[in-house]
Amino acid sequence: MNLEAYLAERAQLVDRALEKYMPALPRPAKELENAMRYSLFAGGKRLRPILALASAEAAGADPVVALPAACALEFIHTYSLIHDDLPAMDNDDWRRGKPTNHIVFGEAQAILAGDGLLTQAFYILATGPYPPSVTAEQILAAIAEIARAAGAEGMVGGQSADIRAQGQGGDPEILDYIHTHKTGSLLRASVRAGALLAGAPMSTLSSLTLYGEKIGLAFQISDDVLDSTGDPKILGKPVKNDAQKQKLTYVTLYGLEKARAEAKRLAEEAEAALVGLGPSAEPLRYLARFTVERNH
Amino acid sequence: MNLEAYLAERAQLVDRALEKYMPALPRPAKELENAMRYSLFAGGKRLRPILALASAEAAGADPVVALPAACALEFIHTYSLIHDDLPAMDNDDWRRGKPTNHIVFGEAQAILAGDGLLTQAFYILATGPYPPSVTAEQILAAIAEIARAAGAEGMVGGQSADIRAQGQGGDPEILDYIHTHKTGSLLRASVRAGALLAGAPMSTLSSLTLYGEKIGLAFQISDDVLDSTGDPKILGKPVKNDAQKQKLTYVTLYGLEKARAEAKRLAEEAEAALVGLGPSAEPLRYLARFTVERNH
Repeated sequence: MNLEAYLAERAQLVDRALEKYMPALPRPAKELENAMRYSLFAGGKRLRPILALASAEAAGADPVVALPAACALEFIHTYSLIHDDLPAMDNDDWRRGKPTNHIVFGEAQAILAGDGLLTQAFYILATGPYPPSVTAEQILAAIAEIARAAGAEGMVGGQSADIRAQGQGGDPEILDYIHTHKTGSLLRASVRAGALLAGAPMSTLSSLTLYGEKIGLAFQISDDVLDSTGDPKILGKPVKNDAQKQKLTYVTLYGLEKARAEAKRLAEEAEAALVGLGPSAEPLRYLARFTVERNH
Repeated sequence: MNLEAYLAERAQLVDRALEKYMPALPRPAKELENAMRYSLFAGGKRLRPILALASAEAAGADPVVALPAACALEFIHTYSLIHDDLPAMDNDDWRRGKPTNHIVFGEAQAILAGDGLLTQAFYILATGPYPPSVTAEQILAAIAEIARAAGAEGMVGGQSADIRAQGQGGDPEILDYIHTHKTGSLLRASVRAGALLAGAPMSTLSSLTLYGEKIGLAFQISDDVLDSTGDPKILGKPVKNDAQKQKLTYVTLYGLEKARAEAKRLAEEAEAALVGLGPSAEPLRYLARFTVERNH
């Protein structure tokens, strides 16, 4: 399997669908539409959508059952980046090699662009379209899964803890909470939502859930590593950001070497969780390795 | 019918359910929980929840079919107030007689509290619980209705236009957009969501939709009037805010007298829309009058 070609092909499928799901707004709200589009099409890797599609496939379904959820996850991920970058939050000026949303559109429109993207995600989830094999109950389960993972009990809670922990020194309980919630919980939900919409049996759902947890953590740790060692030209943003902001990260708490080893171990455990699944899980296996071997 | 007693009884029902729906967060995210609670229980009128319950009742159902949607609407309304009050938006320090969320918890936690409330709304909608009479398809229709009304094509679009229009002089097309979207669209959705969950037939849904549109506009105009003439002690916030910020409102564009007459006319049209409905629509009739006769 050629991972690069696979990622490019899937990202293209997602991009086409995202374009369809982005509402065209009338003149008085054109600025809002521009702000939403700017970040939605800023060149993201589409990792969460690709995970949702690959998970549906691993559960034996046509990946298209998860296409609305895949797009909703990207709307949510994009909103979270816009809000995280705000001056009151991480105060970042660059993202993916471009000025951040509030630098271009101002803080008010950036906050609203985030709000609009988050809300649109649930419109997409509720309206699909889905193939006839997907039941309304499965759709509700996917909505609940994603809402819980993205909200106060998931990503938003993790971001709140992250902001609070800055400059507070190293508390492993809090670091663990930040890691499992800030990034991990939406990645886990991406995998689970794909499986739920595929109608995966309980045993498959359990394997995929474990996979999602492991790669969620691996991804966050490798993000911390990239912030410390990555190439700012490839990352599209300045590095050493975490240390400068006295962020509590795996690297600042345990050091670079331990962080790298832990990410690698978690990616291997993610792959191992798929042992009961057949060749349809092959893309997920490659994605586990990609999570820790990527350079951006 | 004693409207005051009715409103108090329904607000109590809603408050008890809101309490149940507010997640308890662990220590690292306690600040977020506190910020969410602070605004959710800051003494709102619970108008949107009460409309949703009354609409389900008008459509012949037990109002409890709409209780999760009612709470979700209040979570959404609360988030919108927190974000609207932010320094980058309307920069308001007082709301309902208390300091606004960002004054108490800081901007970062206020943004996140809003994000958490909005996301939790969709978790509530997806998980209920609902009585067995409510189908999964009806729930999805209510989610789509609320997401569309709250998002970029509704409330968020209206707020974006409102911010853009400040100090820009009076353009009736833009004022109309702001009015129908910023407040009107979530009020309309409150009425429609109640009807959808009640399984209302098309003709009832049409009447209730028209009702929702009329009171949505009446409410926004009467809000503009209150900002210009209300008692700050009863309102719990300073008045003459709109004029000071050069906001484009019905009062600034058409004057106080015309605004009052228009609100009254719209409330009457709202009542007239219910002519085909029986005594179960009585609370909605009272609520139409309340919308324009209230003093806060």
